[in-house]
Amino acid sequence: MSDFTHLDARGEVRMVDVTAKPVVFREAIASAEIRLRTETVGRIETQTVAKGNVLATARIAGIQAAKRTGDLIPLCHPLAITKCEIDFEIPETRDRIVIRGTVGLAGRTGVEMEALTAVAVAALTIYDMCKAIDREMVVGQIRLESKRKEPSAEA
Amino acid sequence: MSDFTHLDARGEVRMVDVTAKPVVFREAIASAEIRLRTETVGRIETQTVAKGNVLATARIAGIQAAKRTGDLIPLCHPLAITKCEIDFEIPETRDRIVIRGTVGLAGRTGVEMEALTAVAVAALTIYDMCKAIDREMVVGQIRLESKRKEPSAEA
Amino acid sequence: MSDFTHLDARGEVRMVDVTAKPVVFREAIASAEIRLRTETVGRIETQTVAKGNVLATARIAGIQAAKRTGDLIPLCHPLAITKCEIDFEIPETRDRIVIRGTVGLAGRTGVEMEALTAVAVAALTIYDMCKAIDREMVVGQIRLESKRKEPSAEA
Amino acid sequence: MSDFTHLDARGEVRMVDVTAKPVVFREAIASAEIRLRTETVGRIETQTVAKGNVLATARIAGIQAAKRTGDLIPLCHPLAITKCEIDFEIPETRDRIVIRGTVGLAGRTGVEMEALTAVAVAALTIYDMCKAIDREMVVGQIRLESKRKEPSAEA
Amino acid sequence: MSDFTHLDARGEVRMVDVTAKPVVFREAIASAEIRLRTETVGRIETQTVAKGNVLATARIAGIQAAKRTGDLIPLCHPLAITKCEIDFEIPETRDRIVIRGTVGLAGRTGVEMEALTAVAVAALTIYDMCKAIDREMVVGQIRLESKRKEPSAEA
Amino acid sequence: MSDFTHLDARGEVRMVDVTAKPVVFREAIASAEIRLRTETVGRIETQTVAKGNVLATARIAGIQAAKRTGDLIPLCHPLAITKCEIDFEIPETRDRIVIRGTVGLAGRTGVEMEALTAVAVAALTIYDMCKAIDREMVVGQIRLESKRKEPSAEA
Repeated sequence: MSDFTHLDARGEVRMVDVTAKPVVFREAIASAEIRLRTETVGRIETQTVAKGNVLATARIAGIQAAKRTGDLIPLCHPLAITKCEIDFEIPETRDRIVIRGTVGLAGRTGVEMEALTAVAVAALTIYDMCKAIDREMVVGQIRLESKRKEPSAEA
Repeated sequence: MSDFTHLDARGEVRMVDVTAKPVVFREAIASAEIRLRTETVGRIETQTVAKGNVLATARIAGIQAAKRTGDLIPLCHPLAITKCEIDFEIPETRDRIVIRGTVGLAGRTGVEMEALTAVAVAALTIYDMCKAIDREMVVGQIRLESKRKEPSAEA
Repeated sequence: MSDFTHLDARGEVRMVDVTAKPVVFREAIASAEIRLRTETVGRIETQTVAKGNVLATARIAGIQAAKRTGDLIPLCHPLAITKCEIDFEIPETRDRIVIRGTVGLAGRTGVEMEALTAVAVAALTIYDMCKAIDREMVVGQIRLESKRKEPSAEA
Repeated sequence: MSDFTHLDARGEVRMVDVTAKPVVFREAIASAEIRLRTETVGRIETQTVAKGNVLATARIAGIQAAKRTGDLIPLCHPLAITKCEIDFEIPETRDRIVIRGTVGLAGRTGVEMEALTAVAVAALTIYDMCKAIDREMVVGQIRLESKRKEPSAEA
Repeated sequence: MSDFTHLDARGEVRMVDVTAKPVVFREAIASAEIRLRTETVGRIETQTVAKGNVLATARIAGIQAAKRTGDLIPLCHPLAITKCEIDFEIPETRDRIVIRGTVGLAGRTGVEMEALTAVAVAALTIYDMCKAIDREMVVGQIRLESKRKEPSAEA
Repeated sequence: MSDFTHLDARGEVRMVDVTAKPVVFREAIASAEIRLRTETVGRIETQTVAKGNVLATARIAGIQAAKRTGDLIPLCHPLAITKCEIDFEIPETRDRIVIRGTVGLAGRTGVEMEALTAVAVAALTIYDMCKAIDREMVVGQIRLESKRKEPSAEA
């Protein structure tokens, strides 16, 4: 018996049926990091303090991507997310930026792919904005941090 | 003087003007990996041989994402790419799947973000399809492998 | 303390969390106008009576734009609107067309941005269709007319 | 009096107001067929058994299209569908592939256009993938097979 | 040896590389039909003469769909089409509406999928607008009528 | 004889055929304004100096909208724009923000709708971000400032 929930009896791809699942509050937190040269981190940071542009752009790109997850990931349900926050953190090693995305919803299925997509696209946006000054960047550590659900009024 | 090509004199975000650049053949290769439990790799692989579904879905998601890069990454130019291939490789360690994306274009600007977006979305699609059976997956090592350009007839 | 609901404690952009808000019936009415030469108004009008094409196209563009508001306005929630109407009026001065858009929803947040986006895009569509015959058009007076909400069965 | 539910009193296009309708479980099944040369059917089939690629691609395209129906059909409501399956069948005549799409939702309006759009786009995808080897393909018989609704917990 | 141009050596899906193809003028004409009850045809027609709304909406939906073909059909190249016309014809049998779509481009690959997608979506739009008064509609005969290419200045 | 370039001989909507037009450098500048309470202007401005977020978000929204113009305005050609800049100015009256958008392209048709769409969506984004603190905002004066073209290497 198959445990792949996206594959039906004959192994064919399908969107999992969540029609009859209850509407509950759901939240997922995902993170990613982009490794950059320390000089690049410093320059982004200076920009951030002064004008915030690289990270501001990445933040907006991440939020927009979260909304578009069902359009990007073939078997994701289209979800009307009701919360999305993207945060950035520069660790003391100053060789990377850590991106954390939180997505919330009152719905029938979880939002972990939305949180993962948000941080991945935010990281790619930083890459795009810095690629003229840093050719050694690597995006990685895209993972789910946590997810939870609790009953909603509609359940 | 700023080297951030996406920030104008006052540090504000803008799309880089490539209007007057020549149309040349461009190609970029990017890679990513998704780390999974060996058992998950085996199950994807078995599916692949028999029906190819997990990787087939990821491949299509990556190609579709490459076409939509300008829509996802705020300062990317909208590009009518003319080539896109996504390949998967399972190393001997059998603890990850390596994704390689090649994107081509005859155009005024490079396609590295298109290649990076393609492999990132392909990896997230594998994540989505396996998340019911493997909760320890991590997507990473998203990087540019190479890029090149050569004159085109229109240049 | 900040009253900007889209900026978090540190002034960073985020999508407002409406997850726990009740689902209520919501409706918003917005209007816009496009000023045109009287001759242009007359020609649109004649077309309208005979074939209705300029305004029919603008009406459809407005409805489509209302559905895509969350994709266009970065911090708007993606909303599954359940009502959308676009109406046109030519005042006696015959120097403009007034566009009115009504959008409805049973949801957790209001639809004023959807109504504003609908009338703005409808006006731009009229502009696009008449720009070959009238180079003096100006779109303006895009404003919220009213909005209201009332309890729904799900609340 | 007009029975065209998409035209208001003056015959102008509008999105039907379903705001006050109850949320019920809805499902629609649509079908389509693509007529191909028997040799083409055989080659798709062989590919399917070996690697499943033509039909796998069409299946994913159909699922993606179902999610995007409100973006394609001007007066369709944007719907967050919760179920989508696409199946293929080769009749004994071996001169066509029959496509069947099932779409489900807990919502205020039906999903027949989503099911019809899914099978139409799946058929066009088969056309696209086979057009180099078969110039006589015809897509047809796109029709609603059935639809049903039943009360949901939220109603 | 495989003739499936979308499948690479190992049968995996890829976007055909057209990077090095010359830019030539290309045009494709496709057609489709929607069979309806004669009474429905008459009512659409009357609307058409008086206000043109059903067909006007379908025409715009078809044009919009042609522009979005690369987003819908996984292996289609994204193409910046430069011409799109949709026409409707009611044959003497008065039991169907025939839709004809013409799409043009100066580009590296043909536009037949764009023309086919345009007529398919135009037909589905008619279906959507009439489904309240006619439950027996069938969309079919979606086929390529002709395609041609000729050298362009850039070639 | 009709001068409406979007209406064919019988007054039906079509996308203007620009296939045979030469590829030339094109640029269009459009402007818009949003009227706000002076206190709101001051608060946006303070945010701007400190963190730049309201205007940074509006700028990105405008750039993204310029890229999506062909998707929003039914008869606009899909255009791969190669330049986009959005600037903001607060006049001495301090009762409004003036938005100016410049869009460039090497292509077969002009980019004025892209520039107009960019400034309209940037203005709506400011509206969205300030609507919790200012209920009297009005977006207006959306107009073309100038447009020009000059031969390109490909012409």
